[in-house]
Amino acid sequence: MTSTSTSPTPARGPADHDVRAQIVAAATEHFSRYGYEKTTVSDLAKAIGFSKAYIYKFFESKQAIGELICANCLREIEAEVSAAIAEAAQPPDKLRRLFKVSTEASLRLFFQDRKLFEIATSAATERWQAVIDYEARTQQLLRDVLQEGRQSGDFERKTPLDETVMSIHLVMRPYLNPLLLQHSMDSTEQAPALLASLVLRSLSP
Amino acid sequence: MTSTSTSPTPARGPADHDVRAQIVAAATEHFSRYGYEKTTVSDLAKAIGFSKAYIYKFFESKQAIGELICANCLREIEAEVSAAIAEAAQPPDKLRRLFKVSTEASLRLFFQDRKLFEIATSAATERWQAVIDYEARTQQLLRDVLQEGRQSGDFERKTPLDETVMSIHLVMRPYLNPLLLQHSMDSTEQAPALLASLVLRSLSP
Repeated sequence: MTSTSTSPTPARGPADHDVRAQIVAAATEHFSRYGYEKTTVSDLAKAIGFSKAYIYKFFESKQAIGELICANCLREIEAEVSAAIAEAAQPPDKLRRLFKVSTEASLRLFFQDRKLFEIATSAATERWQAVIDYEARTQQLLRDVLQEGRQSGDFERKTPLDETVMSIHLVMRPYLNPLLLQHSMDSTEQAPALLASLVLRSLSP
Repeated sequence: MTSTSTSPTPARGPADHDVRAQIVAAATEHFSRYGYEKTTVSDLAKAIGFSKAYIYKFFESKQAIGELICANCLREIEAEVSAAIAEAAQPPDKLRRLFKVSTEASLRLFFQDRKLFEIATSAATERWQAVIDYEARTQQLLRDVLQEGRQSGDFERKTPLDETVMSIHLVMRPYLNPLLLQHSMDSTEQAPALLASLVLRSLSP
């Protein structure tokens, strides 16, 4: 394995991406024990046995490490949702799965993995780039399903597509955003199916 | 003014409901300065110049005082929403106003009046009786509008009414519940109209 890094300091020892992965793994472990907010880059450096300066060669801040952990988590949710949608043949069924699987995946990744919850809430509160990108991709996924349904004749075409995307995304928000999801626990069993049905009625041609 | 109280101790001086109102007014003032969570019944007693025991003759706990403040606030939201609905002639317009005015009234009463916010979040988190009753009445208001629209032929009748009420209430939740509303500030301008339109499309016969 050779380093192709353009890092300001020539890599000595392992390739840069290995060091980054090592830092992220140690940070995830450390955040899960002591919390994301409370941990400093100094704490991380001490725990890994690196100098603080060395960590700063790979990540410009603690948030940059948090962003990578957060982005990985959001990618995992997306992968699950995309796979579930791909399995369905018809646009209405794709939409039902979008509601169901994105709620289930968000619940599991944000809450059952408690170590991610604090990062996820910081990310959502401060609107990190990873979150903005995730929301844009989720809206794109929704738009693709809607367009497919408009072409197949399953969905109405009178309402501007932008409006349909925006309003359905608002309906899904309490089950996608960890800040709202933490207060929506009573309804995560029933809501995705109920809301998908309501949305499908709103889309009938 | 005479007291008709059945309080265990005979009222001496002002009528009971005057004393209750005096306690609630002082408590509201005190909560707004020092916060609901931090204030104790002893603090309130000191501030009003009553004994703690005297306050306990009128309210069994701090929460009982908070519940009354909260119930008054929720009644105010309801009164505004009901008045706005009564002004509209047609069920679709009633539904639009239900979304718009309940969001506006919730925003104003929970947030602009910061003193109520902490009580509102405690009430919503702990699901005080005032909140449960408010949700039931909000659902009843929604049900009345839906039933009127079904009778007038404005709304479809195939979906069970209970399901329609439940799913529309879920759509409105982020704008009614202060725990969700505090994280929905970016969308309070656009969302009520967008969501009302989506819901109206879902109700078309």
